[in-house]
Amino acid sequence: MLYKKFMSDQKIITDALIKFRNERDWEQFHNSKDLSLAIMLEAAELNEIFLWKNAEETENVNTEKLKEELADIFAFAFLLAEKHKLDVKDIVLEKIRRNSLKYPIGKAKGTAKKYNEL
Amino acid sequence: MLYKKFMSDQKIITDALIKFRNERDWEQFHNSKDLSLAIMLEAAELNEIFLWKNAEETENVNTEKLKEELADIFAFAFLLAEKHKLDVKDIVLEKIRRNSLKYPIGKAKGTAKKYNEL
Amino acid sequence: MLYKKFMSDQKIITDALIKFRNERDWEQFHNSKDLSLAIMLEAAELNEIFLWKNAEETENVNTEKLKEELADIFAFAFLLAEKHKLDVKDIVLEKIRRNSLKYPIGKAKGTAKKYNEL
Amino acid sequence: MLYKKFMSDQKIITDALIKFRNERDWEQFHNSKDLSLAIMLEAAELNEIFLWKNAEETENVNTEKLKEELADIFAFAFLLAEKHKLDVKDIVLEKIRRNSLKYPIGKAKGTAKKYNEL
Repeated sequence: MLYKKFMSDQKIITDALIKFRNERDWEQFHNSKDLSLAIMLEAAELNEIFLWKNAEETENVNTEKLKEELADIFAFAFLLAEKHKLDVKDIVLEKIRRNSLKYPIGKAKGTAKKYNEL
Repeated sequence: MLYKKFMSDQKIITDALIKFRNERDWEQFHNSKDLSLAIMLEAAELNEIFLWKNAEETENVNTEKLKEELADIFAFAFLLAEKHKLDVKDIVLEKIRRNSLKYPIGKAKGTAKKYNEL
Repeated sequence: MLYKKFMSDQKIITDALIKFRNERDWEQFHNSKDLSLAIMLEAAELNEIFLWKNAEETENVNTEKLKEELADIFAFAFLLAEKHKLDVKDIVLEKIRRNSLKYPIGKAKGTAKKYNEL
Repeated sequence: MLYKKFMSDQKIITDALIKFRNERDWEQFHNSKDLSLAIMLEAAELNEIFLWKNAEETENVNTEKLKEELADIFAFAFLLAEKHKLDVKDIVLEKIRRNSLKYPIGKAKGTAKKYNEL
């Protein structure tokens, strides 16, 4: 489908997710509360890869599993974005702008402290 | 920046995230284990919106907060994808293909059961 | 062991957990960060029981699974308490006292709002 | 209250939690799904203490915060146990017995692998 080159990533991903969902008649389960819970449970499966491991070891983890769990997180996150008609690029760029104010370079550089502790 | 129209969403988002991160010298904290933990903690903040609420009420939630928490999840998820050189569109479409096999329409239609209970 | 009747629950549970852990030489993995992560991952498994289900349906869930996941949460929570020499009864009763101030009956009765929204 | 010496920890903690809950008329919100979600959200707040920190640094964390978050986890976990009439000591000791079979000392000693990878 040549024209897909001109569709945004979000549109392509969301269309595929909606098609998969509708073929299975799963929209009935996908309220915002459960979609949010699904994101968190997939995030837990991602984190399971790193449990009991030093952060340094973690760059050698099983990438195949990481890829699958990250894909699941993205899938439910895109479905929730679609439900609330959110443009992912817009909301992330907007959040970066806000965080630039909360974490000014002069204060935040090189420290992992939260903005309310800077 | 006119040429950005031809950049993928993922490239635009990731470039902005990396710029924000590098200006603050935060790459040192962003190992895969902590990025994954960050995704989960942001997912928890998203879920907090829905705690003690019926799923039905949840469509009237504070969208501003939902937008911010979802943006945080996407931000850390894109950073983790970048770290592992993953194309988000590719991994989600690939996961949909796998899930099509785990959840064949005939068996999965209309039920929220897990694939190993179908 | 008759004398166990006079030991606190926490002591009995913790002793059994430490014995199990030490026989497997697992103390090396049980730093506070990973114990906390383990609590969260077990909490995710507990929550998986309820995903895509209405809250009303949830009282008919598989109690056997709930029992196992809740036991896992308690196990890691008691291990973390032991690591920091915390008396579980004391810290919970103390937290109830604090919450009584944050959530005065007159304001908090019948509402699920957070203390900063009361 | 001298007689409390003869009550189990779980009974004392649960009685205090139920009293606090009932005075605020909060039982209506405490279905099993939301209690489980509450446990996970408190676990996330516990984990936030350790985000972006090496596991080695984590033994010097703010114990006051750790104590509060762990108390919250225990509080909701005891409420869920009460709802399902579970004896915490029994379910944890039973889980240790099961785990002894899943993780035999000979195979599990010194390794953090999951039972299905041993």
